[in-house]
Amino acid sequence: MTGHPLSGLAAALYDQIAPLPITSPHGHCDPAWFAEDTPFPDPASLLIIPDHYVFRMLYSQGVRLEDLGIGVPDADRDPRAIFQRFADNWHLFLGTPSRGWIEHTLYRTLGVETALTPQTATTVYDAIAARLADPIWRPRAAFAHLGIETLATTDMALDPLAAHTALAADWPGRVIPTFRPDDVLNPAKPEFATNVARLAELTGIQTDTFAGYLDALRARRHAFRDLGATATDHDVPDLHTTWMDRTEIEGLFATARTGHLSHDQAVRFYGHMLCEMAQMSAEDGLVMQLHVGSRRSTNPLLLARFGPDKGADIPVAVDWVRGLEALLSRCGNDPRFRLILFTLDESTYARELAPMVGHWPCLRLGPPWWFHDSPNGIRRYFDRVVETAGYFNLAGFNDDTRAFLSIPARHDMWRRGVALHLADQVGEGALARADAERLAPLLARDLAREAYRLDPT
Amino acid sequence: MTGHPLSGLAAALYDQIAPLPITSPHGHCDPAWFAEDTPFPDPASLLIIPDHYVFRMLYSQGVRLEDLGIGVPDADRDPRAIFQRFADNWHLFLGTPSRGWIEHTLYRTLGVETALTPQTATTVYDAIAARLADPIWRPRAAFAHLGIETLATTDMALDPLAAHTALAADWPGRVIPTFRPDDVLNPAKPEFATNVARLAELTGIQTDTFAGYLDALRARRHAFRDLGATATDHDVPDLHTTWMDRTEIEGLFATARTGHLSHDQAVRFYGHMLCEMAQMSAEDGLVMQLHVGSRRSTNPLLLARFGPDKGADIPVAVDWVRGLEALLSRCGNDPRFRLILFTLDESTYARELAPMVGHWPCLRLGPPWWFHDSPNGIRRYFDRVVETAGYFNLAGFNDDTRAFLSIPARHDMWRRGVALHLADQVGEGALARADAERLAPLLARDLAREAYRLDPT
Amino acid sequence: MTGHPLSGLAAALYDQIAPLPITSPHGHCDPAWFAEDTPFPDPASLLIIPDHYVFRMLYSQGVRLEDLGIGVPDADRDPRAIFQRFADNWHLFLGTPSRGWIEHTLYRTLGVETALTPQTATTVYDAIAARLADPIWRPRAAFAHLGIETLATTDMALDPLAAHTALAADWPGRVIPTFRPDDVLNPAKPEFATNVARLAELTGIQTDTFAGYLDALRARRHAFRDLGATATDHDVPDLHTTWMDRTEIEGLFATARTGHLSHDQAVRFYGHMLCEMAQMSAEDGLVMQLHVGSRRSTNPLLLARFGPDKGADIPVAVDWVRGLEALLSRCGNDPRFRLILFTLDESTYARELAPMVGHWPCLRLGPPWWFHDSPNGIRRYFDRVVETAGYFNLAGFNDDTRAFLSIPARHDMWRRGVALHLADQVGEGALARADAERLAPLLARDLAREAYRLDPT
Repeated sequence: MTGHPLSGLAAALYDQIAPLPITSPHGHCDPAWFAEDTPFPDPASLLIIPDHYVFRMLYSQGVRLEDLGIGVPDADRDPRAIFQRFADNWHLFLGTPSRGWIEHTLYRTLGVETALTPQTATTVYDAIAARLADPIWRPRAAFAHLGIETLATTDMALDPLAAHTALAADWPGRVIPTFRPDDVLNPAKPEFATNVARLAELTGIQTDTFAGYLDALRARRHAFRDLGATATDHDVPDLHTTWMDRTEIEGLFATARTGHLSHDQAVRFYGHMLCEMAQMSAEDGLVMQLHVGSRRSTNPLLLARFGPDKGADIPVAVDWVRGLEALLSRCGNDPRFRLILFTLDESTYARELAPMVGHWPCLRLGPPWWFHDSPNGIRRYFDRVVETAGYFNLAGFNDDTRAFLSIPARHDMWRRGVALHLADQVGEGALARADAERLAPLLARDLAREAYRLDPT
Repeated sequence: MTGHPLSGLAAALYDQIAPLPITSPHGHCDPAWFAEDTPFPDPASLLIIPDHYVFRMLYSQGVRLEDLGIGVPDADRDPRAIFQRFADNWHLFLGTPSRGWIEHTLYRTLGVETALTPQTATTVYDAIAARLADPIWRPRAAFAHLGIETLATTDMALDPLAAHTALAADWPGRVIPTFRPDDVLNPAKPEFATNVARLAELTGIQTDTFAGYLDALRARRHAFRDLGATATDHDVPDLHTTWMDRTEIEGLFATARTGHLSHDQAVRFYGHMLCEMAQMSAEDGLVMQLHVGSRRSTNPLLLARFGPDKGADIPVAVDWVRGLEALLSRCGNDPRFRLILFTLDESTYARELAPMVGHWPCLRLGPPWWFHDSPNGIRRYFDRVVETAGYFNLAGFNDDTRAFLSIPARHDMWRRGVALHLADQVGEGALARADAERLAPLLARDLAREAYRLDPT
Repeated sequence: MTGHPLSGLAAALYDQIAPLPITSPHGHCDPAWFAEDTPFPDPASLLIIPDHYVFRMLYSQGVRLEDLGIGVPDADRDPRAIFQRFADNWHLFLGTPSRGWIEHTLYRTLGVETALTPQTATTVYDAIAARLADPIWRPRAAFAHLGIETLATTDMALDPLAAHTALAADWPGRVIPTFRPDDVLNPAKPEFATNVARLAELTGIQTDTFAGYLDALRARRHAFRDLGATATDHDVPDLHTTWMDRTEIEGLFATARTGHLSHDQAVRFYGHMLCEMAQMSAEDGLVMQLHVGSRRSTNPLLLARFGPDKGADIPVAVDWVRGLEALLSRCGNDPRFRLILFTLDESTYARELAPMVGHWPCLRLGPPWWFHDSPNGIRRYFDRVVETAGYFNLAGFNDDTRAFLSIPARHDMWRRGVALHLADQVGEGALARADAERLAPLLARDLAREAYRLDPT
């Protein structure tokens, strides 16, 4: 069970694109892995403890997070017991992409030969551990033999980028940062005022005026770009953009630095700053990404005990048309500007997003995100998007993962989905076979490179 | 035409689950049928007059409700004329699950051998009437030979449960009540204040204080549980939950007893009471069900002339994340609490509900409800839900019907849908055949029994 | 690639309905084409310059509208250069219905024998131009040999209907107007007050009182009906209906004539007038159409430079239940009233629209509109609608096109979709073959004629 079995034209298209190098233009790997090139730790720390897809499902069926090593000091964890607990509940993942990714990672990527069951947990654990101890599975070696040509990480604006700096100095692998300024743009974030002050320290540019704040943001963008970044990324829980006159935004900024914006003021401030980011993108060429509509940390008890990102981020409906009105009115026709949109609200695929990317020259539609990065999610995406957006307004694929060794699994799932979709299109008379053969590598790799401006033009 | 023709693995899976006993943990049969065990009346009273699926469609094409015997005294009805009118319009049901259910009921369950057409209406009518006169189609006998092991009815909180009491005394068939307290919880209901007073009479517990009101509610829950109930059910037209401090809720309760809450106050009161119900469920173990998002009686002319439930209940969009925030924050992590959710807004399947049931330990997702209890509705449900929720966060099936003789038809449609889904999953590489064979009986029966706590643990 | 290849039952059903005459009860052809019967102009003016589906896609990929002849005086256009630019970007349309329509128009309708590529643009241009110069492709001749039996245009309330008057006098082809009163009903429209004054001039009925305004509207409706109109059509960007008492609406009307309604007042005024239109429809028998939820001209820069209808109309979510509440409460049970609904929000197909048309006797559901008039859009429509609405609450098909020569292409796409859907239904046991054969011509033609009251009864 490692992916949809293919036949006929779908198999031929898959065979055409399966060997292509992997471009991963958006994700959450840690650049320090490659800078330090230390072995990945034990199987539980690799596959379970950091994977919110995995522990959310176990939690939904009554497994305590502590029993998975979450919120537990490393020294107090028993990775074998955690792995056994996971194996005991392996049936919970039937039908989920998590199961597909993990199977692919175990059996194909790592070459484990024992099928995971509650009874084989120890054997599988040992087999993974043996692989991880092998130098070919150290990060830099794995990056190479897994066929990864470009990997973008996601880095907060205040990150000093030490790992990326080190990498640039001593390794040819293309691991590049992405500028993620939520902490210094969104006054609803904890410690916003402190972060603005740290931005000044980091850049040497005073942030006590709005003009200085903008200059400091520009400086961080340039620092990221100097280390290879081609994109920015923004988490937007509730989509709202607006453009205020200078007096108003300066007033809000002054208040925000003291930490007392109302909820509505904070939303408006962030909405204005997204427009500022769009303008800076038009100027410096960094591709802008918006990940919209995930309501974060909806379980307050878990947030208090274990912190954010514990599986309780739940999507909500998004109004793209009204939400992006101010930003697009301001920057949408600028030929230098590129904006890639991601949604968790599939009802907007055909209703809003496909018509929008089929009109605005700046827009590209990102691939199915998060819960929708799955075989059915991919099928629904093509079904709802292509007829209105065409293929050339899509941004190809990105894996969005923090699980480095699952990258081949995720791209394989997408490439199977591409092959199935294109073969169906040929069968339904929507595409000629030659067109499908031309589109397959675009969807597998080239559209992502083009959308993220990864190749010099 | 009685169900999707199956072949290959789908047929094998269907053959595996088709003979399983029927568990019906949520529906609207009348317990008096079994208590009194009188024969079902004539075919029109069985199949047409009480079925809102049927008469809404006839009304949509210009048939007057009076001409279907609705709002007409029994003595003035001509059931043969009503049945002929239905048969004359039988083509209107082409493509609908109503047609499938009725065909199954006629040809398979009752064994009628003449196909229904406008020309055969009399013959079919006579054939049904002959069956109904046969003792094997009296309620208790039919319950047994249709293979029903458990049937839950839905009973208002003020129902004295006479039929259930009688049943418990003299019949081993497991027909159990479900606690439905809308009339005493939702101040927007007519005669709310009177109902609260009647609650005091019924329980012998004064309801002139909020504390007494809660105690009386607890007492009714216990009375239901003593007669076998394992669940509560709540109709929630507009989803909102909230938790007020004691002073505020006591103040609203005092006002509600005089019947003068504003619309917003009534919504907030009901929203608080849903949290109280959740807490009581955690305490007494009754599984809580929420049926959300049906806007009731949207046709005021029909409501005035014929009353509620006349086919004019229309779904509206639901915001599950914000709507359940207070309730889940308060009770969502309690391992004793179980909450089953039902939606008519399919856009929330993948966006909100699957992520939520894939996180919160208390939550289970109910099967496709009402208009979506149909072959395509079932297919869309699995398609949108499983990849994020898995299978073990689903609550299996319930038929939700008031048409007792259609119960086998409805479970058969679900079981075919399960077989088709699982066979597709195997074909697409998402499941191994052995896993499909293991999941089939779970989806057909066992998950419902587990979700509704129907078996002692 | 001109349509889904069919086999088996789908092919048989298609063969049954493909030769049927074409009824086009809603669209945007210019009646002057038929009144004047002058040849269609050059290929660029036929296929590219007026087609917002085409130029929006080219614009989304960086082609300037000026370079497509838009906003350029006719004399300054180079149609060959425009056609070459289109051919150079022909790949952008892969997977879109636009490509399918254009291929059908070129290869089947016009019989062009050279496949369009960037290299063949000149050859194809010349081939089209040769056809257009042939008298058999003049509008009246083409109308006849393309098998069009009825074609409705869309005409503003203030249109003097000169072309329709001329047509009625000298040509038997049935080209009929549709009453589209947005400009005189919606105070948000530019020059509303002026339009109300022009309405008085055109009708000879004073519009300085609300009663006079209603009488003038009635007079225009009658003038349209006298020229064959059977329907009205209303563009409703944000769905809201309301019924005010006479004093209130008279007050708003008085204010609107001076042009100073607030946004909310304008929405309420239009919402009331939609109810007045419904009442007039019940009286005069004109079928009412609502096209709801397209947010118009979302790109202010393009609006300012090129005017409306430049590809920047984007759908938004619609709340049909609350939005139509006042109108349906007032007129929904009137057996004389017919209302056809169109949506761009597919999430409402199963949630709201199918339940509503399956209840209200006045309602019919229009076919997939605009972006959803596509093979997948048609499939999703049947999938989500039929189980709850049945077939007889659907309004068949209309092409909604302003591209006269694409009419056969659009009806062919629908008819293939119908054949595929019905064959699938038979395969899935939802329909008997005989029922599919009975439904096919209804869906292809007869339901549209019935819904739009095109045949005397």
